[in-house]
Amino acid sequence: MNFSSRLLENAVNEFSRLPGVGQKTALRLVLHLLNEPQADVERFSHALTSLRNNIRFCQVCHNISDLPVCEICSNVKRDKSVICIVEDTRDVMAVENTNQYHAVYHVLGGLISPMDGIGPSDLNIETLVERVKTGDIKEVILALSATMEGDTTIFYIYKRLKDLQVQVSTIARGIAFGGELEYVDEITLGRSIATRVPYGISEK
Amino acid sequence: MNFSSRLLENAVNEFSRLPGVGQKTALRLVLHLLNEPQADVERFSHALTSLRNNIRFCQVCHNISDLPVCEICSNVKRDKSVICIVEDTRDVMAVENTNQYHAVYHVLGGLISPMDGIGPSDLNIETLVERVKTGDIKEVILALSATMEGDTTIFYIYKRLKDLQVQVSTIARGIAFGGELEYVDEITLGRSIATRVPYGISEK
Repeated sequence: MNFSSRLLENAVNEFSRLPGVGQKTALRLVLHLLNEPQADVERFSHALTSLRNNIRFCQVCHNISDLPVCEICSNVKRDKSVICIVEDTRDVMAVENTNQYHAVYHVLGGLISPMDGIGPSDLNIETLVERVKTGDIKEVILALSATMEGDTTIFYIYKRLKDLQVQVSTIARGIAFGGELEYVDEITLGRSIATRVPYGISEK
Repeated sequence: MNFSSRLLENAVNEFSRLPGVGQKTALRLVLHLLNEPQADVERFSHALTSLRNNIRFCQVCHNISDLPVCEICSNVKRDKSVICIVEDTRDVMAVENTNQYHAVYHVLGGLISPMDGIGPSDLNIETLVERVKTGDIKEVILALSATMEGDTTIFYIYKRLKDLQVQVSTIARGIAFGGELEYVDEITLGRSIATRVPYGISEK
């Protein structure tokens, strides 16, 4: 692109480094900000730097939190004997939105991915093992993405936990509720058939 | 959405004020920035505030420019007797990318839109009339969007210029090159037939 201004070009380049934002979208966003009051743009960029500079993570579950221990971990109504293991804070929000889970979390901060150079030591796995060893944990639920990286991470965590007298489970995989069979991909459908459940038992 | 951190919530809310960015996308972008080095986030937000605070517009054509007079207006090879009128800097870039236009521009900074409370006095129209009156301008090309606002603006500018001994033209409208007839909307196709051109003359 042929920019008439270095300042404009800088701003567009910075925006287009974001995932899923190309140069055209970046230009549209930058021109939108140009039409906003100066104070709004200041507030926008302050919100970003202040988040990045002051971000803190819960000491227990590693979820993003303004307090040393997050609201979920410090909630006395939450069952502390079950830990749901997720990749990042988005997944905590997704599980919370189901309103089906009333125990606590452990945020790994990523998945094991040798291709991206992310090994077990880059993730919050040691603290998980420590939690299971020292706490009164009955069950660990692995709620990770059904990808190669997710499966690798599940296998690694399972190996680390299997001698610790804790039940390790993974969330169910299969066709989505409301999903039409003809649109389901072959792998999911194949696995759904292979891991079929007796009717009635699944409806507890 | 149920955020675990006020800082996170602020950043997501600021991002989701951008056009076409919902809360989920905003969260994805914010979490991406959280994983970036602190210096990168500083640079990102500095690029935005510095653009907004130091933005300057060409004194002649009102395009975004770091110099008092932009590179196009100060280029001696450009034909100064033809002015292409566009809505904003994106349209200047679009016309420049065609490599078909070697004269100068005039950026209106918007289109007349009574619905949004934008009248002629909010746009750079007076300076255009002044340029045509005082300069040696032969032709003014209206390259505005084919929308209601574009048509209104074209009509207004035409009325202001029609007594000034200058040729006013608009860019051709019709079916796109490479466009298949069956996918063209009825209005465009109807207007294309009504404004048909003799074959051979259009191929000059």
